[in-house]
Amino acid sequence: MKYPPALAQLIDALRCLPGVGPKSAQRMALHLLEREREAATKLSHAIAAALAGIGHCQRCRMLAERGLCEVCGAAGRDPTLLCVVESPADVLAIEQSGSFRGFYFVLMGHLSPLDGIGPAELGIDLLVARFADPELQEVILATNPTVEGEATAHFVAELATARKLRVSRIAHGVPIGGELEYVDGGTLAHAIAGRHLV
Amino acid sequence: MKYPPALAQLIDALRCLPGVGPKSAQRMALHLLEREREAATKLSHAIAAALAGIGHCQRCRMLAERGLCEVCGAAGRDPTLLCVVESPADVLAIEQSGSFRGFYFVLMGHLSPLDGIGPAELGIDLLVARFADPELQEVILATNPTVEGEATAHFVAELATARKLRVSRIAHGVPIGGELEYVDGGTLAHAIAGRHLV
Repeated sequence: MKYPPALAQLIDALRCLPGVGPKSAQRMALHLLEREREAATKLSHAIAAALAGIGHCQRCRMLAERGLCEVCGAAGRDPTLLCVVESPADVLAIEQSGSFRGFYFVLMGHLSPLDGIGPAELGIDLLVARFADPELQEVILATNPTVEGEATAHFVAELATARKLRVSRIAHGVPIGGELEYVDGGTLAHAIAGRHLV
Repeated sequence: MKYPPALAQLIDALRCLPGVGPKSAQRMALHLLEREREAATKLSHAIAAALAGIGHCQRCRMLAERGLCEVCGAAGRDPTLLCVVESPADVLAIEQSGSFRGFYFVLMGHLSPLDGIGPAELGIDLLVARFADPELQEVILATNPTVEGEATAHFVAELATARKLRVSRIAHGVPIGGELEYVDGGTLAHAIAGRHLV
């Protein structure tokens, strides 16, 4: 015995979501059909609307409805600073911290030759075009502290240095509120290597 | 700064999925928009198609495309046995075990007065109508071994007994391949109380 085709297809389609395997997909499909039919209709429409309406900011590649994103279109931001991040979620996280008033560039990933992700996929040509902005002074590298993120940061750093821009990397170390005892070795090593005089 | 409205709505809509909180919903939405646009289109259509095409079997309440489900419409099944389960996934699990050739009745939940789920929501009137089938001899209770599942089983058992049907409950005990040492106390207590002579 099998589920009816429309249900089997729904279970299969749900597996495109990150972290969803066959069992959770089945659970989600049954949940939608048994208990959340209204919400499911909304979800179907929301996916279609987002696909139709959301593209990339022409200037920074952030997800945006059209033309420029909220940051690129805003007045009063600092044009001397450009922060390079991997994903739109990173932009939101930095904005929520309220600690940065410059502009962003979203790579939409990191260099990963095995997955076919090279400079072209990360919009490096658009980024290099940004480097030509005469007001820009400093490029802040805020890619993730992973092997790929570091490699990507290194790659971007070389391009920026070649254009005589100041290049910085965000600090890595013990998180605020973190207890040394529970911090992993890699982070501690970073924290000690990156110590500064007080 | 906020995400563009269509994206915020998608994140919100994804939260109707079981086990998906704000952070995973955001991760899923970005994943769909950044990397899985084709799959997302398919997902949107699959949800709409399932909502339009999938209803309940008229006889057993199993999810089905129309009229009768695969089991109720099949020839050669044993009409003397009726197995009562909580969800369509339970039917699939029992069918896959290949150990049962009777019919099913799917309650689509369990008694839960605090959530407003009473006999009417579980289709008990339809179940009682099934009890009137002159060929039916035994009702097998296969609700989950939880407090609500046991209460539901007890309720159904009383209705079936009143109609002079034989009532059985599936066995609960140590799973095959399980090691006693890792089995929880409740299951062990069931296994010992339910012991049989060899």
